[in-house]
Amino acid sequence: MITVEEAEKLINSHSLELDVEIVPLAVANNRVLGENLYADRDFPPFHRVTMDGIAIRFEDWQAGAKNFQIVGTQAAGSPALGIDGSNQAIEVMTGADLPGGTDTVIPYEVVSISEDPVKTASIDTTPSHGQNVHIKGSDRESNSVIVRQGSLIGSPEIGIAATVGKSALKVVKPPEVAIISTGDELVPIDQKPLPHQIRSSNAATISSALGEWNVEADLYHIVDDLNGTTSELRRLIDEYQILILSGGVSRGKFDYVPQALEELKVNKHFHRIRQRHGKPFWFGSHSSGTLIFAFPGNPVSSFMCFNRYLKPWMHRLYGLDTPVLNAKLTDDIHFNPDLTYFAQVKIDFRDGTIYAKPVEGHGSGDLANLVDADGFMELPSARNHFVKDEVYPVYPYRCDLCSDSKAL
Amino acid sequence: MITVEEAEKLINSHSLELDVEIVPLAVANNRVLGENLYADRDFPPFHRVTMDGIAIRFEDWQAGAKNFQIVGTQAAGSPALGIDGSNQAIEVMTGADLPGGTDTVIPYEVVSISEDPVKTASIDTTPSHGQNVHIKGSDRESNSVIVRQGSLIGSPEIGIAATVGKSALKVVKPPEVAIISTGDELVPIDQKPLPHQIRSSNAATISSALGEWNVEADLYHIVDDLNGTTSELRRLIDEYQILILSGGVSRGKFDYVPQALEELKVNKHFHRIRQRHGKPFWFGSHSSGTLIFAFPGNPVSSFMCFNRYLKPWMHRLYGLDTPVLNAKLTDDIHFNPDLTYFAQVKIDFRDGTIYAKPVEGHGSGDLANLVDADGFMELPSARNHFVKDEVYPVYPYRCDLCSDSKAL
Repeated sequence: MITVEEAEKLINSHSLELDVEIVPLAVANNRVLGENLYADRDFPPFHRVTMDGIAIRFEDWQAGAKNFQIVGTQAAGSPALGIDGSNQAIEVMTGADLPGGTDTVIPYEVVSISEDPVKTASIDTTPSHGQNVHIKGSDRESNSVIVRQGSLIGSPEIGIAATVGKSALKVVKPPEVAIISTGDELVPIDQKPLPHQIRSSNAATISSALGEWNVEADLYHIVDDLNGTTSELRRLIDEYQILILSGGVSRGKFDYVPQALEELKVNKHFHRIRQRHGKPFWFGSHSSGTLIFAFPGNPVSSFMCFNRYLKPWMHRLYGLDTPVLNAKLTDDIHFNPDLTYFAQVKIDFRDGTIYAKPVEGHGSGDLANLVDADGFMELPSARNHFVKDEVYPVYPYRCDLCSDSKAL
Repeated sequence: MITVEEAEKLINSHSLELDVEIVPLAVANNRVLGENLYADRDFPPFHRVTMDGIAIRFEDWQAGAKNFQIVGTQAAGSPALGIDGSNQAIEVMTGADLPGGTDTVIPYEVVSISEDPVKTASIDTTPSHGQNVHIKGSDRESNSVIVRQGSLIGSPEIGIAATVGKSALKVVKPPEVAIISTGDELVPIDQKPLPHQIRSSNAATISSALGEWNVEADLYHIVDDLNGTTSELRRLIDEYQILILSGGVSRGKFDYVPQALEELKVNKHFHRIRQRHGKPFWFGSHSSGTLIFAFPGNPVSSFMCFNRYLKPWMHRLYGLDTPVLNAKLTDDIHFNPDLTYFAQVKIDFRDGTIYAKPVEGHGSGDLANLVDADGFMELPSARNHFVKDEVYPVYPYRCDLCSDSKAL
């Protein structure tokens, strides 16, 4: 048995090469950018008016002018007009190109306009030079990188891509993943189980969690038979970059996964971690490059291993940072075994502090209990007592700060 | 002009009826559950073995027995065997139905098995009654609600749905939304703009952000013309439940949106909020039920209004909680105007505390600046100085605690 830290290190010493693919901008949200986004021209592309009002030459005002003859109206989306003499003004609209010869915009709110004898604006304010003008190129210069390759694409990045004329983006292509559930006790979702059977759920849980990286995993089931397990895994190792198994890795008589993987010459990096839950986790790699994450079959165990090990590894695979979320315990926890304990916790954000409230579970088989919690808090094996207000890392599986599940 | 609080209250006093629809389980992640999920039988459905080892009758051990004759092997997925006399044991595998007559499971780790003269297990531990057995119905009883209608569906809920045999789920159906950009200066993404033109980006940004609620918005563009604006908006009000406009709401000569909406008898609830950015935000409702959110056209302003007002409202529309994220300022901010100030901030989670670091922007036109920040911090108008370590609410637009953008 190895420690949590050793297991993490071994997993993180393996990686895969991911391809890129091109997708339409409309579906690029949440993907990882596979190219730099460059400014195709200066931003803003012209001296841009930022308030509705009148544009003047500041020098005229400085020289004592308070009344300006209005010689035109500059709409957004029209080629720039210009003034051709002193003490002239042009009405300007937000988003317009600043008229030639002007440099300062006075908002309508502090301007009085009279029509008699000629259209004239008088200014009821002390303007400052260049006010309400967004200077050409002041945000970004033409050809500069605006969004770097490797960025996670969110709504702002979508807007920028639109601005620079990219209606399709190069993004990281998800790996080929197979999720394989094992065990004779499992029946498909649509089937009514006999009294000693249960429906397969881990594959659905993990497959849905992999949606975070746009992985479209293929789902398989293998029964507890060594030859069948070996030949099916041989085929899947050939076909996929990542295999995620659930079940068949503990000490049971029909736990054939480690033996089958050994026969297939998969290099075992570890089997069993000093942790609760998820102790029987098995990890290895094949010479083809395929990585095999074999989780225990208990629903809480497999989901915990997914969140603690595979999820940060996936982030790393996509080149994303994986900041650790530390949270403050709201209650004491006692845990005696000499194991790292992953406590199920409810996360709460209050007054600038992140709290983790322990949620009582019924053990590793209690899938329903997961809906009451938001993540797993990692409590080190070196201690047995974890005291209120102490801070420990949490691996959240609900990340949306703005949402909350209404589970029982 | 009204305050931020008044604007929020007015928006939240309006809502819509959302339908439900049925979707396959595989695509139900991130949807809001439109039905209760019930346990279709007890969970666990049988006394479930949780360790590989031997099952015994505890009474035998209490009566002094240390050696037990092994009379069978109980695999997971097989009908339950049973013992028929005292001092008998059955080898049991994790996930198996506990054999009849037994009540306690001793793990292989603390059992010695000899084959001579008959297969016998001797126990090297002090077991406790009922250990390593997950009692039938101890997690949930048959017919009890496991996940409540209105829950946000995450991976654990997907797993539970699979367990109870739901291969399709009733979920909340997104509203019909049109996003309408206005302004003669806008050209489509694929078009090369003339010097005084820019590409349309707000519609792409907002459309992508609406993906959080699975909204598939239709995108429109209208030019700065009163008659055209009026007739197009008449048609869209008929067709959609929500209109989101960008641009055409400030004081410009060609800002026809408020006038067009007035002609269409849309009930104006407010126009202009005492805030920076996003002051010209216009909100109203039509007697048909259609709601109209008309944001200013500046990219930062429209995105800010979206995050501060529309996003929490959408959460509420779907029946989800909208907890406020409060964060601690890392630096002082000074802001003199008598307006609520939405400062762009980078959010950081460190040692159990949520920090917000102000990010310098170039004003409401600087879309590129949004990639450097994670959200908007709301600083009240009553003050001008906001001091390091003070806590204020943040409206984040990057919610994934586990990811980080690599923008410049």
